[in-house]
Amino acid sequence: MSATDDLADATVFTPLPNNAGVDAAVKAARRVIAALLHAGNNSPAEMGGVADRLNAVAEYVEEHAPPVAERMADMWAGEGFSRHNPVTGPENAIAPPLHFQLRADRSIVGVTTLGLQYQGPPGNVHGGIAALLLDDALGVSNFAAGEPGMTAHLSLDYRKPTPLFTPLTVRAAQQSVDGRKIRTVGTISANGEVCVEAEGLFISMREKNSPSWPMTS
Amino acid sequence: MSATDDLADATVFTPLPNNAGVDAAVKAARRVIAALLHAGNNSPAEMGGVADRLNAVAEYVEEHAPPVAERMADMWAGEGFSRHNPVTGPENAIAPPLHFQLRADRSIVGVTTLGLQYQGPPGNVHGGIAALLLDDALGVSNFAAGEPGMTAHLSLDYRKPTPLFTPLTVRAAQQSVDGRKIRTVGTISANGEVCVEAEGLFISMREKNSPSWPMTS
Repeated sequence: MSATDDLADATVFTPLPNNAGVDAAVKAARRVIAALLHAGNNSPAEMGGVADRLNAVAEYVEEHAPPVAERMADMWAGEGFSRHNPVTGPENAIAPPLHFQLRADRSIVGVTTLGLQYQGPPGNVHGGIAALLLDDALGVSNFAAGEPGMTAHLSLDYRKPTPLFTPLTVRAAQQSVDGRKIRTVGTISANGEVCVEAEGLFISMREKNSPSWPMTS
Repeated sequence: MSATDDLADATVFTPLPNNAGVDAAVKAARRVIAALLHAGNNSPAEMGGVADRLNAVAEYVEEHAPPVAERMADMWAGEGFSRHNPVTGPENAIAPPLHFQLRADRSIVGVTTLGLQYQGPPGNVHGGIAALLLDDALGVSNFAAGEPGMTAHLSLDYRKPTPLFTPLTVRAAQQSVDGRKIRTVGTISANGEVCVEAEGLFISMREKNSPSWPMTS
């Protein structure tokens, strides 16, 4: 069964890029990040000039950014909630980004391919990057199940190296809710084999005012 | 006691930026990443133009990058080993970067302040980013203790929210070596209180050809 069989419908659980806005610039920033890593310190590129050009872009964008307090309020309103996240966010250049889709059983699945900026051991994904993707996936699957929570404990088992430049399937599903305790599991697979398994204990946010997770189609 | 008391000497365990090379460009790329997140989708900045300028930089750098196989070999030779890492690497724009220092007891410590690109809950660090920093810190501390390993299991306890825009102290120390099993612990603290605790089980790399961790001063 392919990773995208058995989807609930065409619903995408995290926002897709909107290239009309900041997303195209963020996509280009991701390309810059990867290019700098591919070039490295022995490249014949004139890096001083590259730095000047990037600083000029940063200065221009900074001049057109709202005050942080205003931006934070906007970030946490409506769809913004998932647009800035370091795993899924089309506004966040450190995010691959990973797009999760909702399945009929309310678990989630997403596929991404990671490049050099996510490298740990030679040719493989950094164990902490795998943890980042899984922590986020578990959190999104709690929203998908209608019972979001804050991470209290996260446990990761590394079964085999997670390869770079290879499609990775990230899955997560809420397993149980006992009072305010939520248990959620997830995996990262490559070439049909599980590379990393995660299990998380989350504390329900039901008692608190928590934003609802945006659904976009 | 401040985070930087009790250091073994002036030894820095991860490379400091070398602004004469690619590092200045990567530093500027980090500034672009943060600026784009601060600006967001409602900024009056002409993001199409920003995208064009960033794509032009990426294209220039890509044209001056070696083939991937050649670059990979270079990345894993000498100091390169720690220069591209997503936590410590001055060549990696997704890295904060975090600089670890070696203490007299061969534990390690580093201080960093994280911005919007690392946000999870409002105003706080993403739990998966905390996991990323700690997995890396545990790995570096295994090198510091002379017994490096591959992560087999990682366990994280989230004690309290880890704040953005606040100096975070990341510590790690190898606890025991039993055959090829290595146990290592670490913490992230803010304002003198532990926010996240990590415990890792690593499998020794002694049997394999493993690169030595570079020491720079």
